Amino acid sequence: MSEIRYDVVTGKIAVISTERGKRPHDFKKTDVVKNDGPCPFCPGNENMTPPTLVEFCDEKGTWKLRGFNNKFAAFSKDTNSSMVEGDNELHNELHKANDGYGVAEIIVESNHHDKTLGQMEIDEIQNIIKALILRYDEIVKDKNIKYVQMFKNFGANGGASLEHGHWQIMAVTFIPEAVERELQGVEKYKNGKGTCPYCDIVNDELTEKTRVVAENDRFIVICPFASRFAYESWILPKEHKKAFNKIDSDDIKSLSSLLKYIINRYEDLFDYPPYNIVIHTLPHQDERDFHWHIEILPRLTTFAGFELATGAYINPTPPEQAASILRLD
Amino acid sequence: MSEIRYDVVTGKIAVISTERGKRPHDFKKTDVVKNDGPCPFCPGNENMTPPTLVEFCDEKGTWKLRGFNNKFAAFSKDTNSSMVEGDNELHNELHKANDGYGVAEIIVESNHHDKTLGQMEIDEIQNIIKALILRYDEIVKDKNIKYVQMFKNFGANGGASLEHGHWQIMAVTFIPEAVERELQGVEKYKNGKGTCPYCDIVNDELTEKTRVVAENDRFIVICPFASRFAYESWILPKEHKKAFNKIDSDDIKSLSSLLKYIINRYEDLFDYPPYNIVIHTLPHQDERDFHWHIEILPRLTTFAGFELATGAYINPTPPEQAASILRLD
Repeated sequence: MSEIRYDVVTGKIAVISTERGKRPHDFKKTDVVKNDGPCPFCPGNENMTPPTLVEFCDEKGTWKLRGFNNKFAAFSKDTNSSMVEGDNELHNELHKANDGYGVAEIIVESNHHDKTLGQMEIDEIQNIIKALILRYDEIVKDKNIKYVQMFKNFGANGGASLEHGHWQIMAVTFIPEAVERELQGVEKYKNGKGTCPYCDIVNDELTEKTRVVAENDRFIVICPFASRFAYESWILPKEHKKAFNKIDSDDIKSLSSLLKYIINRYEDLFDYPPYNIVIHTLPHQDERDFHWHIEILPRLTTFAGFELATGAYINPTPPEQAASILRLD
Repeated sequence: MSEIRYDVVTGKIAVISTERGKRPHDFKKTDVVKNDGPCPFCPGNENMTPPTLVEFCDEKGTWKLRGFNNKFAAFSKDTNSSMVEGDNELHNELHKANDGYGVAEIIVESNHHDKTLGQMEIDEIQNIIKALILRYDEIVKDKNIKYVQMFKNFGANGGASLEHGHWQIMAVTFIPEAVERELQGVEKYKNGKGTCPYCDIVNDELTEKTRVVAENDRFIVICPFASRFAYESWILPKEHKKAFNKIDSDDIKSLSSLLKYIINRYEDLFDYPPYNIVIHTLPHQDERDFHWHIEILPRLTTFAGFELATGAYINPTPPEQAASILRLD
């Protein structure tokens, strides 16, 4: 049997297998990123990348974290060409397009080629978050930018093309539909109940406890009720806060501690599985309400025809079971 | 540079890399489905599967195609349990769920373990389409069913867990959001222009020719303008037809011929790449207008953080280039 669950904010459907939840050893380990030749993200190879945009150094002046433009950018400010040539009204109606104006940057997490996020010290993770915020605040000075998407791909099945740990920042001239849907979901829920749905989720999960993985003074890690991915987790600020880039140094410390915890649990339980980390925050020019959060999406199963055809997801592990396994009781 | 393209029906965004389109040899071949033990889909192992629901036999009575319930079903009519226990109003509001009532069936394409769709004779492909329609018409007799999703997963990265070629049918009690979005897109476009957007696409592509891969009397294969996947193709009926299950025997023959053609091209150019085939048709209880079609989604790149965070897709190959390579001039 299975159960169809609806995300309270977006309405997105997750089909949760209730009969036999897949446990960590049920997932095959098939994921290796192998790069030939020198690593462009390693110290000494800085000339293989564009110039430094942000870096943190140790007392000897050696960089510990380094950010720069993505050499293979999906978005850039160099937008002088277009493939689309309209020749009549119908043609133009069918072929709506814009140039790919935007920003694509890389943050290299550390100067160690194969140190993982779960292996890092908390202050190293704090530096990553600080660097993301520094770049965010710089990037949004460009008024053409509507949204800054920050994310991390890990492992081949997570879409990482380089092994050396890194984050990506992509700034675009539109509000992505997944973010817009959450914004509208928050608005609709607030209009009905007068409260923020994410605040209600935090309070409900703290009461019920079955989907809580970890918590500290400022943040909570849960496996969301309508988890689309097996062992999916979210990190939410306990207090209602709209925007990731407005967090203070105590937030950064608390967040880093939980991020290390949850990634370390994945690494231990699934032997360094592929995953994506995505940050959802209020678009910086937006007046609406939001509750920023982080989604961690382990890539243990494959998107297949059903997901691509329908937009609904089949998840073989109930989040209650996932949380009980991810939790250190 | 890149270009942001909008699907005219759904508004979905594809970010098309215009700088250097990825050609077939740029994609790594990493995909193998390997099964241990006897194949449950091979002749002689019928006792490993649920009972036959549909089969076509040769003159000796040996089955050439066989359908049955999926043993590992995401949906079934046995819905007597629920994981969700509501204890107060807020809890219920946050935890909306239904049981996973529905149907999950398998159609085994042939009695050859490793014969691929592109290697089949056209009459074998006709049998697959006939079997899908037979099962469709049977399944929708249950008035609880709102949509029947038919699809094929091929290859490990396409989500296939068994190597032996097969299709899947999943019938559900909701209209999937991806289908609903297309239905609403058709309605909105018709309200504006008075025509069906898919009919306009067919006519525009036939005039412009740059994204046409193949055509015959009844169908056209194109690489859609806002292709989300590298080398994505769609098969559309040239005439406005709402529903897949209403096609006639000439349609089935024409469709089978083009389906063989395009899959064969993928197999030749990409050495049997992983892919998904999904059918989008009018929900059978729906009074709205639609133009049914097939989407073929090669899985040459990996969904990564950007796609999962935003709902927009980065596609490294312009569809014009993809069509010129898939086309046999």
